Amino acid sequence: MSHPFFKNHGPFKFSEIINSLNISIDNSSNENEIYDIKDLVSSTKNDITFFHSKKYKDVAKKTKASFCLTTDVLKTELPDNCLALVVKNVLVSTSKITSIFYPESINDNFDETAISINDTHFKDTVDFGKNVLIGSNVSIGNNCKIGHNTIIEKNVVIGDDCCIGSNNVIRNTVVKNNVKILDNCTIGKHGFGFFPIKDKNLRYPHIGIVLIEDNCEIGCGTTIDRGSMSNTIIGKNTYLDNQIHIAHNVKIGENSIIAGQVGIAGSSIVGNNVKIGGQAGISGHLKIGNNVEIGGGSGVIRDIPDNTKVMGYPAKNIREFLRDNK
Amino acid sequence: MSHPFFKNHGPFKFSEIINSLNISIDNSSNENEIYDIKDLVSSTKNDITFFHSKKYKDVAKKTKASFCLTTDVLKTELPDNCLALVVKNVLVSTSKITSIFYPESINDNFDETAISINDTHFKDTVDFGKNVLIGSNVSIGNNCKIGHNTIIEKNVVIGDDCCIGSNNVIRNTVVKNNVKILDNCTIGKHGFGFFPIKDKNLRYPHIGIVLIEDNCEIGCGTTIDRGSMSNTIIGKNTYLDNQIHIAHNVKIGENSIIAGQVGIAGSSIVGNNVKIGGQAGISGHLKIGNNVEIGGGSGVIRDIPDNTKVMGYPAKNIREFLRDNK
Amino acid sequence: MSHPFFKNHGPFKFSEIINSLNISIDNSSNENEIYDIKDLVSSTKNDITFFHSKKYKDVAKKTKASFCLTTDVLKTELPDNCLALVVKNVLVSTSKITSIFYPESINDNFDETAISINDTHFKDTVDFGKNVLIGSNVSIGNNCKIGHNTIIEKNVVIGDDCCIGSNNVIRNTVVKNNVKILDNCTIGKHGFGFFPIKDKNLRYPHIGIVLIEDNCEIGCGTTIDRGSMSNTIIGKNTYLDNQIHIAHNVKIGENSIIAGQVGIAGSSIVGNNVKIGGQAGISGHLKIGNNVEIGGGSGVIRDIPDNTKVMGYPAKNIREFLRDNK
Repeated sequence: MSHPFFKNHGPFKFSEIINSLNISIDNSSNENEIYDIKDLVSSTKNDITFFHSKKYKDVAKKTKASFCLTTDVLKTELPDNCLALVVKNVLVSTSKITSIFYPESINDNFDETAISINDTHFKDTVDFGKNVLIGSNVSIGNNCKIGHNTIIEKNVVIGDDCCIGSNNVIRNTVVKNNVKILDNCTIGKHGFGFFPIKDKNLRYPHIGIVLIEDNCEIGCGTTIDRGSMSNTIIGKNTYLDNQIHIAHNVKIGENSIIAGQVGIAGSSIVGNNVKIGGQAGISGHLKIGNNVEIGGGSGVIRDIPDNTKVMGYPAKNIREFLRDNK
Repeated sequence: MSHPFFKNHGPFKFSEIINSLNISIDNSSNENEIYDIKDLVSSTKNDITFFHSKKYKDVAKKTKASFCLTTDVLKTELPDNCLALVVKNVLVSTSKITSIFYPESINDNFDETAISINDTHFKDTVDFGKNVLIGSNVSIGNNCKIGHNTIIEKNVVIGDDCCIGSNNVIRNTVVKNNVKILDNCTIGKHGFGFFPIKDKNLRYPHIGIVLIEDNCEIGCGTTIDRGSMSNTIIGKNTYLDNQIHIAHNVKIGENSIIAGQVGIAGSSIVGNNVKIGGQAGISGHLKIGNNVEIGGGSGVIRDIPDNTKVMGYPAKNIREFLRDNK
Repeated sequence: MSHPFFKNHGPFKFSEIINSLNISIDNSSNENEIYDIKDLVSSTKNDITFFHSKKYKDVAKKTKASFCLTTDVLKTELPDNCLALVVKNVLVSTSKITSIFYPESINDNFDETAISINDTHFKDTVDFGKNVLIGSNVSIGNNCKIGHNTIIEKNVVIGDDCCIGSNNVIRNTVVKNNVKILDNCTIGKHGFGFFPIKDKNLRYPHIGIVLIEDNCEIGCGTTIDRGSMSNTIIGKNTYLDNQIHIAHNVKIGENSIIAGQVGIAGSSIVGNNVKIGGQAGISGHLKIGNNVEIGGGSGVIRDIPDNTKVMGYPAKNIREFLRDNK
């Protein structure tokens, strides 16, 4: 869990945490302080964690967290050092606690800290167009260009030799060296993540970032959402064409090529040297191996092993697809 | 038919209307005044209406309109109070007459009335970014935010507690309370509606609006076109992800969830509590029931009854789809 | 090959060209000057050309070029007047030589020549919004409108009676008369063309333009990339809806209608009077005939003859598609 950009408002007293969940625990820990909310693996003894599915049973057994949001069924898996806090919906409660630690990560209103680049020290080091705005907590390396009307909102790190085009909105993003971002992109906004509740959905926090590695190119009109509890990552030398949508927590490997209008749903992982044809879609929470080729228009709804070529909806082996569709 | 934003230039004399159609009618009504053009049901005796398909036979029989654009075959269905005006192409003629009453509804050129928000009274009541423009006939409620470079063009009503992001263009739209619109959206432009004519198509008027109900969220890069003769509606607490296209006259119910890159073609109606997966498409003039789930990538080309889960292209029952595609 | 906008930095001495390719040729031509790089058909005796596939054998035999990048196998097809330059990868070498003649055609950084329209002579002849920027080498005809925040970058010709909306970025584009471009479009950027090379891809030059003929309409959020060695063309009176992506070198005929979210991959040719439904995709290098109808959501992966209706993925005869999917 990486959240370099969102201020942790902790620590909070255990009693405060408990009250916000509307549960009561007979416990002597009320005065204990909790410093952060983390996943089962990353937590230390000062943290609260969460455990909502038995598929995490093995890591749950070893968590170092002192407190864990979980269910009546799962709580028996936790070690002695960890006090189970049984709640009705683990993910909703996790969201609530995360919101307490990171209140700025929930809503993405426009950045009120953004000012004209002419009023910042970047005016001397960046090659920039008209009407460029820069928010707080931004750093920009050497030999960078930023085009007209682009808004670098708060919490952005840009490396050396980057070319950012016009009309972009970027926030909560780390861009490494020699990256090109063309025009009309929106990068680093929160993902499409919320708990559906009748009449008024509950948004959950997005404390992750977008990380774009060296030598990438991002086409026009592309959207890349930042991660919720992890980061959204575009690997080195990966090229994205126009009008692509990359959802929260997606991780794409190196040297991959993704054609226009592709969409990759939340939390899917794409390997290295992957080629994805235009308009293909990848469902959420999938694993696409290395050296995979996905034909244009495909709909991928299952994991794809390394070195495989697929096509179709749902995507299957490309030879099979072409044979079935002579 | 609702057209709060387009000025009705009527009434017009019956003789003027007849002349514009290039038909001749031997009739004593020449000096009569016509106040509006409406559908068969909404028309009053001062209005002209249109009747182009026998599927509207039953409502045609009861229309209160004094004049009706129709065909030689259909005219016998009209009541005695209604004079049939037989034309070659009912919809083209309807378009021509609507253009006479509502000339501003045809072309969507940039809004020349838009000025800097700093030069409006909203500078004191709205929390706004750099370079925000506001057109004529705009109202904005309490506690609203409008991001950088956003253009609120003419004919927009925004309720309370709304957050509009950056780089948006919005016109002819009513936004209710607590709505979030992220970045790079275009909302309220005319739809993709015209009569194909060799060398120079004929655009038809769009006198409808976009209505976005309470608690909605609209993702980045989304386009929502206003209605032609009715409105385009996004129901309460419905969330739209990034890069979605909602065409003219579409009506989406409450508490629905629509994932990235979905497209809904003109005049389709989507119920309440509907979930639509990424990149799915819905053809025009369909009816999608309540509590429907549509799998990602689906292509829906038929109506879907309530409480149904579908997937595929064309979309069918999801169990069938998964069985056929093991 | 048309490249009205990119300056040819030639002529170059044959020896300079040879050196850049890292090949050695025992030849007396070292002091010869080469004026341009062109395809096999367009080349004159002052030019260098390229020949990479035997399907161009017949035109290769007749080329007037004095030099030709090719392979050991293909070189025997060339006429006596043409010296074969055998290289490892013909297209990579072609790209390198093109980059030498046209260095400005490789990277699309923001246009540093763009200034406020208020500081140009267009302030007296164009009807324009706030914050409009105009680059060098732009011409605009009579009776044109340009909306707020739109950037007409360098190398743009706009005819008479055109309406350009807001938030657009346009470069390297010829727009004929009576064209409407709505909002948030990016037109004329280089295409998604490069040679994949581990760790750092090699972009190839795009010396073509975008040509939009009379009476076209381009919807919101649409991207149209300029051609690499030829032009990207939208024919007369063709209408594009919102969020369409047109890749490099695509040519679309007259009077065609393309619905929302369609994508057409590189170098495909679409005929006249073609109708394409929403979200359909067309693979690269295909030929779609005249009077073709492509159903919404289709994935076209083969050529389509004139007067055919297709649907499906892969697209097939629509009657067959509907019969197979009752």
